[in-house]
Amino acid sequence: MTVSVGSISGSSKVYTEGGVPLRRVHLTTGEHFDLYDTSGPYTDDNATIDLEKGLAPRAGVVRDKGTQLQRARAGEITAEMAFIAEREGMPAELVRDEVARGRAVIPANHHHPECEPMIIGKAFAVKINANIGNSAVTSSIAEEVDKMVWATRWGADTIMDLSTGADIHTTREWILRNSPVPVGTVPIYQALEKVNGDPTTLTWEIYRDTVIEQCEQGVDYMTVHAGVLLRYIPLTVKRVTGIVSRGGSIMAAWMLAHHRESFLYERFGDLCDILARYDVTFSLGDGLRPGSIADANDAAQFAELETLGELTKIAKAHGVQVMIEGPGHVPMHKIVENVRLEEELCDEAPFYTLGPLATDIAPGYDHITSAIGAAIIAQAGTAMLCYVTPKEHLGLPDRKDVKDGVIAYKIAAHAADLAKGHPRAQERDDALSKARFEFRWHDQFALSLDPDTAREFHDQTLPAEPAKTAHFCSMCGPKFCSMRITQDIRDAMDQKSLEFAEQGNRVYLPLSS
Amino acid sequence: MTVSVGSISGSSKVYTEGGVPLRRVHLTTGEHFDLYDTSGPYTDDNATIDLEKGLAPRAGVVRDKGTQLQRARAGEITAEMAFIAEREGMPAELVRDEVARGRAVIPANHHHPECEPMIIGKAFAVKINANIGNSAVTSSIAEEVDKMVWATRWGADTIMDLSTGADIHTTREWILRNSPVPVGTVPIYQALEKVNGDPTTLTWEIYRDTVIEQCEQGVDYMTVHAGVLLRYIPLTVKRVTGIVSRGGSIMAAWMLAHHRESFLYERFGDLCDILARYDVTFSLGDGLRPGSIADANDAAQFAELETLGELTKIAKAHGVQVMIEGPGHVPMHKIVENVRLEEELCDEAPFYTLGPLATDIAPGYDHITSAIGAAIIAQAGTAMLCYVTPKEHLGLPDRKDVKDGVIAYKIAAHAADLAKGHPRAQERDDALSKARFEFRWHDQFALSLDPDTAREFHDQTLPAEPAKTAHFCSMCGPKFCSMRITQDIRDAMDQKSLEFAEQGNRVYLPLSS
Repeated sequence: MTVSVGSISGSSKVYTEGGVPLRRVHLTTGEHFDLYDTSGPYTDDNATIDLEKGLAPRAGVVRDKGTQLQRARAGEITAEMAFIAEREGMPAELVRDEVARGRAVIPANHHHPECEPMIIGKAFAVKINANIGNSAVTSSIAEEVDKMVWATRWGADTIMDLSTGADIHTTREWILRNSPVPVGTVPIYQALEKVNGDPTTLTWEIYRDTVIEQCEQGVDYMTVHAGVLLRYIPLTVKRVTGIVSRGGSIMAAWMLAHHRESFLYERFGDLCDILARYDVTFSLGDGLRPGSIADANDAAQFAELETLGELTKIAKAHGVQVMIEGPGHVPMHKIVENVRLEEELCDEAPFYTLGPLATDIAPGYDHITSAIGAAIIAQAGTAMLCYVTPKEHLGLPDRKDVKDGVIAYKIAAHAADLAKGHPRAQERDDALSKARFEFRWHDQFALSLDPDTAREFHDQTLPAEPAKTAHFCSMCGPKFCSMRITQDIRDAMDQKSLEFAEQGNRVYLPLSS
Repeated sequence: MTVSVGSISGSSKVYTEGGVPLRRVHLTTGEHFDLYDTSGPYTDDNATIDLEKGLAPRAGVVRDKGTQLQRARAGEITAEMAFIAEREGMPAELVRDEVARGRAVIPANHHHPECEPMIIGKAFAVKINANIGNSAVTSSIAEEVDKMVWATRWGADTIMDLSTGADIHTTREWILRNSPVPVGTVPIYQALEKVNGDPTTLTWEIYRDTVIEQCEQGVDYMTVHAGVLLRYIPLTVKRVTGIVSRGGSIMAAWMLAHHRESFLYERFGDLCDILARYDVTFSLGDGLRPGSIADANDAAQFAELETLGELTKIAKAHGVQVMIEGPGHVPMHKIVENVRLEEELCDEAPFYTLGPLATDIAPGYDHITSAIGAAIIAQAGTAMLCYVTPKEHLGLPDRKDVKDGVIAYKIAAHAADLAKGHPRAQERDDALSKARFEFRWHDQFALSLDPDTAREFHDQTLPAEPAKTAHFCSMCGPKFCSMRITQDIRDAMDQKSLEFAEQGNRVYLPLSS
């Protein structure tokens, strides 16, 4: 089993005194530019990775003082909050207050000390999640661990292990012990395996034991489709694409077969007690999310959202952290309403959406259809975006798809950070733009989301090393380079300025007659 | 010299009685679904293409009655307008009225009869443009003709030939004679070649003669950077990326060298007279567009836009059709203001924007950074989107980049059509979603923007032909297929319905206790 190690091109990994990891970009000007980093020890300069052994646990994990939510309410700034404050460049008090209000969550199971603390909330940088996991049809454990490392290398803030095939427990163990980011799961997938795939034979006890098993392993957040109620099922009948959430459809099948209310809903209080013991965060699933543009924002979707609001209050009363999952497939003009309603119904619990895809007509390119929706929904206040890969709706993502999905979502998240006025976001754009304008090609590559691809594309047209310092590029050639001409113009203007100063004229540059 | 011919997978090319081309998707249900088609005779069933000879000219081109704008004002519904009305599924009177108001343009040089008439305006489907063209550094004529055919195959509504190297005239001739879509150019590029690349030696006469040469050849629209005035240049000095438009920087260099106002601005009336004779459409260039997030919506950009508004009125007074070019690089929260200002200052002339990129940090992925901005600006009313390829800022696009750029922009344009409530847009999404839900894999591929890639991705995980009719896919496998479970739920609900009817009960589905 091997994974990608080594620093990102043009950067090295550094840690602050507080232990916060940074990707330090070394500019050709002699300066450096530090970036938020999710890649864990795999990108350390002298990384020694032993996957069998797992990552070293961080010190200071407290197991007996309750959840981050409970401790924030008590006024405490935990070690995790202090770490996050430095990581985000925000005051520790803000981190504590946002957690206390339930507007942010810190998914950090006491049993997952390998994880570097991070925060999900709209006051902070927008986060992205990458789904991995094998299915009955394909994929192996080694591939999934490799995908996890690969996804975090390119910027995934959390990982969800959605395995459904054999070896669910073992796959998850490998991922948890080696993941530097929080890991989420959907426990009902494993529960269903335990009953050989027949949803009607599921029981609360089997489900509960599965949740405890995963809590013990160290899962940081769990998707629970407790908002799919029996009376909502008829609302999906006239839909173009019915129920497209696996968890939602499993619970619907169970409810119809037994003609009773969902055990996830009825035993939600018991679930809260379990999750509170480990500080596992709820990710309340949207089992009735739309599966097509036609079904967006319909009665079924919003009925469930109302129930998620009710469950949010119960979870918080138990001191359990909560975030809310959102769609899915939504045309652009219906996106913002999702955020407003979620904030209103769910007390501003962090919203965590899957895309949404802004159109259904581009299978094979759903990282793009959904990056459009993701950027818009994040600008409106969504705290974390679940990526969609080019293979969505068609097949399981391979390594290339995982990277394509992560990069597309880093773009969406960053575009939203910019639009929200996040100061660090603007600084990075400015640094890269300045490098571009000054023909510092190496710096432009190093500051980008994917230095390898940027350099490779440049080399395809102008491979020679001198081209990396050339004051033009292949698009326009030397004669037409607007940026070179602009530099000449500035020189000319400086000269004019000088003349102006000498002449004492008040017009900076004479206007045309 | 060879180009791609043959129908798009799962479709055949048909023509209406009015000669309007359609991509007819043949569904496995026995029905068909017709799509707007830009690909020209190259996708005809028995295409016989002779690039040396060029495409057959369409009949009925009238050369002596003035421009589409003048004829629309006179109340005439031209042959082009009738064709477009059928192509867009809109009343011919609406086409005429939008053209008469200057809210839409029909770029159709009398000397380019190979072109299938199309319209650019916010009342119609959002259009996309693909840039091609060789530079001094690389590329050949054959490659550019191939890219033109390739781009229109995947949906480019217009092509811009941005060649700057040798053989500009000949390259353009090959493209024009073989292009089924309108062709745009930036005449100053060729004018600069004529003075060996020194902008300061340009003259009005050289520029004018170049414009006439291109009008005679059949260019349908021309980018003219007549809004860059001498007094605006100082506004760019403190920018992070100065002037990034080639045309803008060339004119700025000329003005500074001669210390005079732009000849494009001063001789704009003469230009109008020339373009009116051929019905060539102005694309008023944004020579001061922002080249980075930092420079978006600044004083230089909006000063030029105001001048473009002034020029729009002059062009219209001469009976010349006009559209307005827009940025560029703009963070999401500043995008909509561009459309509002353009509409206000330029009498709602069609807006034609380059992206905009919503962030600068992802060179190598600027088709995505810009598709986000493009979708948003199109939703706000932009009529045509100029694509950006993955190679933007790094190198010249090859065949793959052209397709990636076109598909990303078809996604953005279509997402905007959906958000604007275009009825045909919604129908296509619904048809594809329904095929997806019913496991009609072949139909899902055929209805998509890129059937080849959709099929290839599906085959990578489940290659066998039986998988194309399987009622599950590789993502979840048979046990976890939410869509299969939903079908089962519907069957169960139908049974319940039946029982309900027999019992005369008024509750559709009993609620949980």
